[in-house]
Amino acid sequence: MTVDDTPTLGIGMVGYAFMGAAHSQAWRNAPSFFDVPIVPRLVALGGRNREAAGDVARRFGWESVETDWRKLVARDDVGLVDVCTPGNTHAEIAIAALEAGKHVLCEKPLANTVAEAEAMAEAAAKAAESGVRSLVGFTYRRVPAIALARQLVAEGRLGQLHHVRAQYLQDWIADPDAPLSWRLEKDKAGSGALGDIGAHIIDLTQYITGERITGVSAILETFVKERPIPESFTGLAGAASADAAKGPVTVDDTALFLARFTGGAVASFEATRFATGRKNAIRIEINGAKGSLAFDFEDMNVLQVFDNTEDPRVAGFKRVLVTEPSHPYVSAWWPAGHGLGYEHAFTHQAVDLLTAIAEGRDPEPSFADGLNVQRILAAVEDSAAAGSAWTEVPAPA
Amino acid sequence: MTVDDTPTLGIGMVGYAFMGAAHSQAWRNAPSFFDVPIVPRLVALGGRNREAAGDVARRFGWESVETDWRKLVARDDVGLVDVCTPGNTHAEIAIAALEAGKHVLCEKPLANTVAEAEAMAEAAAKAAESGVRSLVGFTYRRVPAIALARQLVAEGRLGQLHHVRAQYLQDWIADPDAPLSWRLEKDKAGSGALGDIGAHIIDLTQYITGERITGVSAILETFVKERPIPESFTGLAGAASADAAKGPVTVDDTALFLARFTGGAVASFEATRFATGRKNAIRIEINGAKGSLAFDFEDMNVLQVFDNTEDPRVAGFKRVLVTEPSHPYVSAWWPAGHGLGYEHAFTHQAVDLLTAIAEGRDPEPSFADGLNVQRILAAVEDSAAAGSAWTEVPAPA
Amino acid sequence: MTVDDTPTLGIGMVGYAFMGAAHSQAWRNAPSFFDVPIVPRLVALGGRNREAAGDVARRFGWESVETDWRKLVARDDVGLVDVCTPGNTHAEIAIAALEAGKHVLCEKPLANTVAEAEAMAEAAAKAAESGVRSLVGFTYRRVPAIALARQLVAEGRLGQLHHVRAQYLQDWIADPDAPLSWRLEKDKAGSGALGDIGAHIIDLTQYITGERITGVSAILETFVKERPIPESFTGLAGAASADAAKGPVTVDDTALFLARFTGGAVASFEATRFATGRKNAIRIEINGAKGSLAFDFEDMNVLQVFDNTEDPRVAGFKRVLVTEPSHPYVSAWWPAGHGLGYEHAFTHQAVDLLTAIAEGRDPEPSFADGLNVQRILAAVEDSAAAGSAWTEVPAPA
Amino acid sequence: MTVDDTPTLGIGMVGYAFMGAAHSQAWRNAPSFFDVPIVPRLVALGGRNREAAGDVARRFGWESVETDWRKLVARDDVGLVDVCTPGNTHAEIAIAALEAGKHVLCEKPLANTVAEAEAMAEAAAKAAESGVRSLVGFTYRRVPAIALARQLVAEGRLGQLHHVRAQYLQDWIADPDAPLSWRLEKDKAGSGALGDIGAHIIDLTQYITGERITGVSAILETFVKERPIPESFTGLAGAASADAAKGPVTVDDTALFLARFTGGAVASFEATRFATGRKNAIRIEINGAKGSLAFDFEDMNVLQVFDNTEDPRVAGFKRVLVTEPSHPYVSAWWPAGHGLGYEHAFTHQAVDLLTAIAEGRDPEPSFADGLNVQRILAAVEDSAAAGSAWTEVPAPA
Repeated sequence: MTVDDTPTLGIGMVGYAFMGAAHSQAWRNAPSFFDVPIVPRLVALGGRNREAAGDVARRFGWESVETDWRKLVARDDVGLVDVCTPGNTHAEIAIAALEAGKHVLCEKPLANTVAEAEAMAEAAAKAAESGVRSLVGFTYRRVPAIALARQLVAEGRLGQLHHVRAQYLQDWIADPDAPLSWRLEKDKAGSGALGDIGAHIIDLTQYITGERITGVSAILETFVKERPIPESFTGLAGAASADAAKGPVTVDDTALFLARFTGGAVASFEATRFATGRKNAIRIEINGAKGSLAFDFEDMNVLQVFDNTEDPRVAGFKRVLVTEPSHPYVSAWWPAGHGLGYEHAFTHQAVDLLTAIAEGRDPEPSFADGLNVQRILAAVEDSAAAGSAWTEVPAPA
Repeated sequence: MTVDDTPTLGIGMVGYAFMGAAHSQAWRNAPSFFDVPIVPRLVALGGRNREAAGDVARRFGWESVETDWRKLVARDDVGLVDVCTPGNTHAEIAIAALEAGKHVLCEKPLANTVAEAEAMAEAAAKAAESGVRSLVGFTYRRVPAIALARQLVAEGRLGQLHHVRAQYLQDWIADPDAPLSWRLEKDKAGSGALGDIGAHIIDLTQYITGERITGVSAILETFVKERPIPESFTGLAGAASADAAKGPVTVDDTALFLARFTGGAVASFEATRFATGRKNAIRIEINGAKGSLAFDFEDMNVLQVFDNTEDPRVAGFKRVLVTEPSHPYVSAWWPAGHGLGYEHAFTHQAVDLLTAIAEGRDPEPSFADGLNVQRILAAVEDSAAAGSAWTEVPAPA
Repeated sequence: MTVDDTPTLGIGMVGYAFMGAAHSQAWRNAPSFFDVPIVPRLVALGGRNREAAGDVARRFGWESVETDWRKLVARDDVGLVDVCTPGNTHAEIAIAALEAGKHVLCEKPLANTVAEAEAMAEAAAKAAESGVRSLVGFTYRRVPAIALARQLVAEGRLGQLHHVRAQYLQDWIADPDAPLSWRLEKDKAGSGALGDIGAHIIDLTQYITGERITGVSAILETFVKERPIPESFTGLAGAASADAAKGPVTVDDTALFLARFTGGAVASFEATRFATGRKNAIRIEINGAKGSLAFDFEDMNVLQVFDNTEDPRVAGFKRVLVTEPSHPYVSAWWPAGHGLGYEHAFTHQAVDLLTAIAEGRDPEPSFADGLNVQRILAAVEDSAAAGSAWTEVPAPA
Repeated sequence: MTVDDTPTLGIGMVGYAFMGAAHSQAWRNAPSFFDVPIVPRLVALGGRNREAAGDVARRFGWESVETDWRKLVARDDVGLVDVCTPGNTHAEIAIAALEAGKHVLCEKPLANTVAEAEAMAEAAAKAAESGVRSLVGFTYRRVPAIALARQLVAEGRLGQLHHVRAQYLQDWIADPDAPLSWRLEKDKAGSGALGDIGAHIIDLTQYITGERITGVSAILETFVKERPIPESFTGLAGAASADAAKGPVTVDDTALFLARFTGGAVASFEATRFATGRKNAIRIEINGAKGSLAFDFEDMNVLQVFDNTEDPRVAGFKRVLVTEPSHPYVSAWWPAGHGLGYEHAFTHQAVDLLTAIAEGRDPEPSFADGLNVQRILAAVEDSAAAGSAWTEVPAPA
């Protein structure tokens, strides 16, 4: 199989930092390792700083740089806009792209507010009518062990689900002298651990279970209320930073909430940046009447599987090394036992999106799915503000 | 050191089932492996069924059997009453024993209601004035890895505490056809997973942190509302069991709650009997600014320790095998690397209690500590009944 | 105190140190937790130091102390002699006991030389003709996870065996300043890591596989040739210790050997006291065509099981928590998930021996099995002395 | 597209299968993620099958295809020849390239025989005089956890080394009906598990310890002597395959050997394709007087580290997640906790080679290092053929 006569699609990506590198690598890798029905062309990289963007463009083979995202969206050779900017800019860029008839891949969380997310979902639904596709980048769904978890639940191997417990644990601001950054400002980031990493475990647990969260009871906490303002930090007003060595943290350091799922399971969620020793520990455990699953991203090529229908004499959690050709996405890469890394899921995301476009299907997770997550984030904040009172999550239309 | 001239103390134990065997072994083992200042004599075992109690007595060397606990309490040669009966009988027996001037070891939870626990704590406080000692059997405190965890926190090795997460996971009624038992009836058991196993993680986290829980937000759930009535089951009214093959489950199958600790940490708790594949998984993780701890009873001789002050290049969770002579309780047993089992903690409890009696100190956890746990259990039930509303826990007097 | 009308058997135990405590506890526990057909009576404890032995006797309830093992063996009320002394005394005591018609439990290794072991096996065979039973104390066979491993292999779950790898790793003399002790002297201990701990993994792998080792290729090494002589150390000639602060280590610090089993499997063995960080790590892994097993004593209540007949998509090593009622020995103890410790295997050994005596069967491992291990140890030493040349192990008669 | 004014180097790669894809990705990734001093240009891909090679070329951006490796080597725009073909062709291609003044990266094992390896090392030494660089592809050295292990040993953190134990466990031919392939034929593959995977653990342990193996005692085994001949299999003579459904396996299925290192450590090695359940388990453990290290490729982003100088009360094997910016190679990739995969080490290898070329240094492991490994492989085969007799490994010149 060759890539010769395969149709191509021009990609325009806005943003070029951490996520930009991951996405660049994904677009480049997709046709190298997978037999994609559409080959992406890296036609334009958008960034306000031409020099910095140019460096990334050279490194990954982007054909050109645009310093104005509106120009990038407007280019004829751009068929898909990949939005990798901070959350407060997602709505404007994504909606413009959709209205221009461009497919859109938008990083998570979909937006910083429910209102923005609603507008985006609406724009996506409208665009879908004319075959324009959109996807929100809850990329961890494409980690093979997570995709396998989804398959096993969908096959009924866990039976009736009773428990979901999910934690996303980091520790990068456990030090009270860690400086302020845009991720600690509400107007830029929307929320703290809640939206940044809590959003992932909300999406993942709904994806794996195939169910929705119906309500929550929550607490939020900001352990360190003020932090040093770094010299390079332009996020705060100049006057304030001149007067004081410290500035306020305006987002949560941690979010904890209990939840219920549509099928009757109860759940416990926790997202934090203060779990010393845990670097990127996405931990999910699901217990059903017939079996259980457990995952930890710090051992990302493994899914723990318990089969409760086995004779207890030989039953136990199996450490399934998710590197077999029969596992999702794996056969495109290396032989059994040769693990994948963090960025491979981005390639899988690109492949799935290109395939959906080629096949004329709406890919998942949709902007509507992203809106649903946004509503859960809002419910968590509402509950926390109301003394942890149980707060229903509106069902999707 | 010999046990020759050591003073003795007559033990009278009420109850002889699972806990009775564990306690019998503890009283017998204490002077064998430890240099106890008081040697326990197993003088009387109390049980309504003389034959069954007699069998246990013969197995463990109890000198006599009493079928009426009041007689046992009244015996001159009984100096300590060990209460191993179901929770609904604790108050009556323990208070009678205290009033008779007998030291009391009472199994957890202290009682089935706050009112009973208050009466017990009051009786214990009064008895203490005349040197009568009392202890509530939160035995897991005496697992060496747990005792080490307490030491490390007390030494300041974790710094400011931010997170506590605790789970007690079992799966013995995940099968909806598992039969009814007294543990599933509110009038006998007080509550379900909450009081039976949730009480343990409440006590353990307060013990390890040296802090108290100040409030909670909770949900309770009974997944299986009715269960088959076993033929041998006499806990339900005869008429009901004659009419129906199934009877109602009147306690929780699972309890989840969020909490806050006095020092500012936030916490997540979960107790369940539906976590398929988890048999007796007491999992506790604590994150502080300077370090973290993690424990799982399914690997009970291990404490995971993270030192956040180490160079990140060589930092990581240490798997400390808690079998060194310098670890709590360990030097009395075997060489390094030779792990202990479940029942050893009961021996440690007996040793600590005998030592406190000899030294004229009140041992811990006291009945007041048991009352505090009871109040937290009540707050959890109250919160769950009030739509998860935040519910304060009264501070101890 | 006995159990009903069950017959009793008087135990006379020679030796009272580490192993003496473990055996005392075993004899005492056996009738408490198991329905043994014969109840052991702890009638006599033998030790040259009357005071020290007396202390142990009081702690565990031995009825009397004998300072001359010959008198202990000769006593009418002693029906079984339990030999817990160092290896250089095993032959004399055990043979005398067998000739006196007493059942014998002898600690491992059976002896310090093949010649002694042969004499012992011969004496045991002769005694067996008149119903006298003998057992060598390879106690780890009675760890539930090990016994389960044996069952699974015997059931054919592993298919044709290809690989055995076994390590017994300790680190208590990794420090070159650790002092001399009798365990480091060839005339007392026979060998070093080889016989002390290597003997265990030889026995365990033969037991689990149900096969014998047919030949070996080996290296031995003594890393630290001289060690400080402790003041209390009387094992060396007085003159030498007066002249020098250090004395020679005359045994191996480590033994490594390759081996072949009767069924065609190849094997790798390693015993060492220099594996820093490994305290009592008995690690055994067995790979067969249809499955694999792995065990590590540092997590002793777990057996890792891989089923190669499963769909690779959900296959993986299962962490079987060997605490179910259906697991060997477990139902006598605690509910599922409540792990056992090091000393429980000694109780299982006592129960198995008492049962074999009651049923008129020869228990396993027999003295002939102990002799076989001794011959393998000798073959290892011979191979090491002969430039690792392949050295056959004589087949049992 | 290049990075600025950085000089470039034309790469010509011979071979395009599994290793070809890994190397292609490496050459492409190197300048994307690292600030390389020389940018590789993927100018020519060599393969006898133009169509198949052309497909790989298109997927990874190779500018041209050569069906004759001699033409590829001769091209003026090729400055470095990357040899990814089976081992029996390495010598001819690599020597030709070196003689043509081209830098060479040659996959491991360096050759199938010592004689070939000697010729290659000689050619490399000669070429080095005129600044031509050569590297043998023991790529696992560049896994960050392995590189960290090397650093820790070099820093003296383990002290005097006592033990090395290394296993490379796979299971892909545990099924006796798995078909013949070129990897099971001695004339193509040189040896079986020994050279294919055993070579890796030989190199890795010598690299990490900084010491050499001085002698070995070995056994080899072929469990399945004959295997089905697949229809597509052209490796055997046609006549033979017409007559019989099965053909002979002419290489080892497993190799086990004991070894000694220059510094006094003893070692145990095992390489097998029959360890059911182990997919690509490269396990290395090293014990020194001051500490220990342990690694398992099935958890490749982790290095276990034990510090024997710590207080035993808090000592234990640390699970160091090797994803910190201070870890080797890591800062070029993702934030802490975001693990790398199998192929990243190939990029690191490319970066190190390009850097050495730019700096005028000979990179490691050199062809002389590859020859040393070849001599150890030969010593293993010699020992196995001589009844496991101890066999010295010649010291490098």
